Amino acid sequence: MTADPASAGTATPDDYAARMERAARAAAQEGLSGLIVSPGPDLVWLCGYRASPGAERLTALILVPGRRPLLIVPELERGGAERAPGAGALTVTGWRDAENPYDLAAGHLDVRGRYGVSDNTWALHLLALQRLRPGAGYAALTEALPMLRAVKDASEVERLAAAGAAADAVYEAVVERPFAGRCELDVAADLDRLLREHGHSQVDFTIVGSGPNGADPHHDSGDRVIEDGDMVVMDFGGLLAGYGSDTTRTVHVGEPTAEERKVHDIVREAQQAAFEAVRPGAACQDIDRAARSVIVRHGFGEYFVHRTGHGIGVTTHEPPYMVEGEHQPLVPGMCFSIEPGIYLPGRFGVRIEDIVVCGEEGGRRLNTTSRELRVVR
Amino acid sequence: MTADPASAGTATPDDYAARMERAARAAAQEGLSGLIVSPGPDLVWLCGYRASPGAERLTALILVPGRRPLLIVPELERGGAERAPGAGALTVTGWRDAENPYDLAAGHLDVRGRYGVSDNTWALHLLALQRLRPGAGYAALTEALPMLRAVKDASEVERLAAAGAAADAVYEAVVERPFAGRCELDVAADLDRLLREHGHSQVDFTIVGSGPNGADPHHDSGDRVIEDGDMVVMDFGGLLAGYGSDTTRTVHVGEPTAEERKVHDIVREAQQAAFEAVRPGAACQDIDRAARSVIVRHGFGEYFVHRTGHGIGVTTHEPPYMVEGEHQPLVPGMCFSIEPGIYLPGRFGVRIEDIVVCGEEGGRRLNTTSRELRVVR
Repeated sequence: MTADPASAGTATPDDYAARMERAARAAAQEGLSGLIVSPGPDLVWLCGYRASPGAERLTALILVPGRRPLLIVPELERGGAERAPGAGALTVTGWRDAENPYDLAAGHLDVRGRYGVSDNTWALHLLALQRLRPGAGYAALTEALPMLRAVKDASEVERLAAAGAAADAVYEAVVERPFAGRCELDVAADLDRLLREHGHSQVDFTIVGSGPNGADPHHDSGDRVIEDGDMVVMDFGGLLAGYGSDTTRTVHVGEPTAEERKVHDIVREAQQAAFEAVRPGAACQDIDRAARSVIVRHGFGEYFVHRTGHGIGVTTHEPPYMVEGEHQPLVPGMCFSIEPGIYLPGRFGVRIEDIVVCGEEGGRRLNTTSRELRVVR
Repeated sequence: MTADPASAGTATPDDYAARMERAARAAAQEGLSGLIVSPGPDLVWLCGYRASPGAERLTALILVPGRRPLLIVPELERGGAERAPGAGALTVTGWRDAENPYDLAAGHLDVRGRYGVSDNTWALHLLALQRLRPGAGYAALTEALPMLRAVKDASEVERLAAAGAAADAVYEAVVERPFAGRCELDVAADLDRLLREHGHSQVDFTIVGSGPNGADPHHDSGDRVIEDGDMVVMDFGGLLAGYGSDTTRTVHVGEPTAEERKVHDIVREAQQAAFEAVRPGAACQDIDRAARSVIVRHGFGEYFVHRTGHGIGVTTHEPPYMVEGEHQPLVPGMCFSIEPGIYLPGRFGVRIEDIVVCGEEGGRRLNTTSRELRVVR
């Protein structure tokens, strides 16, 4: 339902065919009978079909090793499905309202099979399939095949770099505008507009947390009026040509205090330490530990309340996660955020975030605006 | 992450408390041990909390009859959760990255319980809970309690009426603009802009299907240039102050042929027949049958490829569905679309859609623009 023409052509039909075949092969290697892929990033990445996500009508791509991929769609969306760039390598089957699409789908599942299911598959659909195939097993796709989309090819990295460069241009533009006297939603609206002006077809978030609101990492921009003396956390991103941007900078309205500067310096040091830890073979949790140890050493450990980062690709949040307990080793081509923060409740927050790609020798930043504390007016 | 201040205050704290209690009671009556509610419309309706939907981090409201509602949220979103208008009637529990939120949630589920789960709960989360509580049973919320949000109170009906009136104003404005020579995406952009100008905080869809594209009911507006002689289906809607609009009109560029006029007349007759079938006690499928029988009688049955309608409320698509096999009787306060269509592949399509509320005596239209075939330029 939501067209995104800008991102329709992120890969060739051959790319999509190869991705579907690779996914089916990877499934087999993990002992899975197949994959059940729902509308959203997995489906877009595998076959280029941008179905309305979150629909009550079943749309599902069924990938089984050795069989032609099958895309089950509501009959009234068949036209769009058949025009998807990867459609040449699959069979589209439509179902009509008043038919039962789960019977249709279950007919393609082995009664004792084990299937990987897109993380975002609706419970409505999964429960219906489980009822029809109670002897089958189901596992979330990111648990069964966490790396399916994690390693980007060169063309994907360049798309992420383009999205990052656009986000950087947005940052450079927004800091030239006045902050004091405007409310957070005004600045958030600037970010939204600027992201679109710089080529984004979709804006996923424009967090503007000023003063004490900056201490809430996922603050919803609101009507608080920004004042002289405020720290302001800005975290924004979306999709450009089908690939994500996500960057955070913390600015200060007027001259910062010594304490504000110190906290910002610590976060910057933590961000740098995590960046320097990026190399093939390092575990995801090592990136988190590198950032966290800096913040802990300075006595602010309890105020760093989230993981250090997340993967990015055709979505703005996806595996791998840079979090304690994640032993997945980094592989060249993985793209992810490094975004440590310190949040002092009731006072202010600081977060600095760049997207980074793991290369053969180490990390490369896809955001390159200065991480120094910028004074705005 | 996505703030929607316009819709934050759709109900009072007491309303939210009453809805949560009513939901828990309804669950008990259906033999459920409780409800697991995910970010999205159920959560917004029950407690006013607009969490980022579709997040990989678990957010869940657990409603168990006789217990205080529990809202499990990522620690970094606790601030927003605690500010939700219904938060006074529940307990917020935060979990930090590197903690396991499923252990936390499962600790509140009986090992042999049976739970209703929001339709849109991610498989990632449901599968994790099933693994920890394999002896428990799970059912999709709209199957277990399809009527939970279906019957709107007077204030909700008035909000839907306001959204409908805004959509009607959008239609009256768009038909004054030129069609011939512009592409579908241009008209779709007009609809998007007009919906926002008329108070919508969110636009869910702006389908513009011209000429042969109109025969694809869920056509993604594209770069086809609209020509003189085209039928153009426009289906648009979104949220205004937290409640949905959804209306469709089919216009003609220049004078229609006799056949085009006839097909439009049949759809209009079908829409009217379905509207006249609305009364308390009529089954949902009766509404579908009323529309379908008109179209079948005129020999176009095979070209009406979708159900006749869907409920609307805090989302633009929800139960009840006006579809063959749905025996649910209509109840005063139910609001839903009536949207029959005829789709002639490769040629053109016609759909006419109004939102209707079931009253004590019959239906009331919440869209009131003319359903006559409008000639545009």
